[in-house]
Amino acid sequence: MKIHIMTLFPGMFDNFFKESLIGKAVDKKILDIDIVNIRDYSKKSSMSVDDYVYGGGSGMLMQVEPIVDCYRDIVKGRKVSTYYLSPRGKLFNQDMAKEMAKDEETVYICGHYEGIDERALTLTGASEISIGDYVLTGGELPCMIVVDTVARFIKGVLSNDDSTKDESFADGLLEYPQYTRPSEYEGLKVPEILLSGDHAKVEAWRKEKALEITKKNRPDLYEKYINKN
Amino acid sequence: MKIHIMTLFPGMFDNFFKESLIGKAVDKKILDIDIVNIRDYSKKSSMSVDDYVYGGGSGMLMQVEPIVDCYRDIVKGRKVSTYYLSPRGKLFNQDMAKEMAKDEETVYICGHYEGIDERALTLTGASEISIGDYVLTGGELPCMIVVDTVARFIKGVLSNDDSTKDESFADGLLEYPQYTRPSEYEGLKVPEILLSGDHAKVEAWRKEKALEITKKNRPDLYEKYINKN
Repeated sequence: MKIHIMTLFPGMFDNFFKESLIGKAVDKKILDIDIVNIRDYSKKSSMSVDDYVYGGGSGMLMQVEPIVDCYRDIVKGRKVSTYYLSPRGKLFNQDMAKEMAKDEETVYICGHYEGIDERALTLTGASEISIGDYVLTGGELPCMIVVDTVARFIKGVLSNDDSTKDESFADGLLEYPQYTRPSEYEGLKVPEILLSGDHAKVEAWRKEKALEITKKNRPDLYEKYINKN
Repeated sequence: MKIHIMTLFPGMFDNFFKESLIGKAVDKKILDIDIVNIRDYSKKSSMSVDDYVYGGGSGMLMQVEPIVDCYRDIVKGRKVSTYYLSPRGKLFNQDMAKEMAKDEETVYICGHYEGIDERALTLTGASEISIGDYVLTGGELPCMIVVDTVARFIKGVLSNDDSTKDESFADGLLEYPQYTRPSEYEGLKVPEILLSGDHAKVEAWRKEKALEITKKNRPDLYEKYINKN
């Protein structure tokens, strides 16, 4: 999969890609990551890419022209899935990630300051996606979140193909408590059942705990699960 | 505000803090960020901090002892707000961030691999928070998301104290479309009303657009807004 990331802060991506599983996937040539600096497409001598908002309001907005020029230079007429990271978008989730993992090429546009000129969305055809209901300084962190989540669905990225199966949300429930050695620590013991070797009992215990935790922390997901099952 | 981050991948935080508004807040001594490597608290000669999951399952789990030792070395008996980034937690949002910004000291625990031993949560008293319904490789990116969001509520971090006011979610709606120069680009014109200078009309137009976009992209938020107003 080829991933193009349009940003004003290319440096923010350095360590993320180096230290994470994304870096390994790049080394294995499963992923090809192309970070493009939108500022390189400024036509002003100051190299600025932002200006005041029409109609008033605090902060600066990224202008349409450098974004569109940058975008067209990347896609060169090809039809490529394009996303703009924005709190205004549809909520990103595990199912969406699975779908996005099927694309062979993707462009992500990271906004900064107050956002981008609306016409940049029209002209690039970007879909807006949001990682959650909170406001960040720019689209860079959300972009890393999306790329990390999507990459996990691409064959060969995780060392074990099963690793995405029994994780959180796989069946619509939050994950049960997990324990590793030692079996007792400061008086806290691992539940006996997990040491029993009885696979069916372990599964039943885990299911029960997953239901409990989901009901407590995420009544919305619990209700969805109950209605579906 | 003093922020301690417990992680196995301290390097992932380097550029994020350097390139973002967090770096500026650190320079201004508004924030003090302390990154601690949990691996330094391993007692094994291999310096490993993980082991197999009791009861079976793929992947490795972070052990309780290095986490608890690391945590106690940071807090030294003080009572400090502590969070574990986990898809199992309560959903992080703008209101939660505002509350969290009132703390003078915070510890974030970043998990990796399959997660952490449940007893580490019991012994540190960490609250679990989730940034959204998707699975990531570790808690590092979610931690940056939370720190960035929370920091924006701390006085002096944003250059203009008003900057968090008219942003997304401030009134429970998504943001209206925004435009900056030029007023026409490839035939696409900025809506006349935004150039009119009529502040009341601009506000009315923005409200209408915000309602439209919220209804389309986030019917859940739209319904909440309608019921409240």
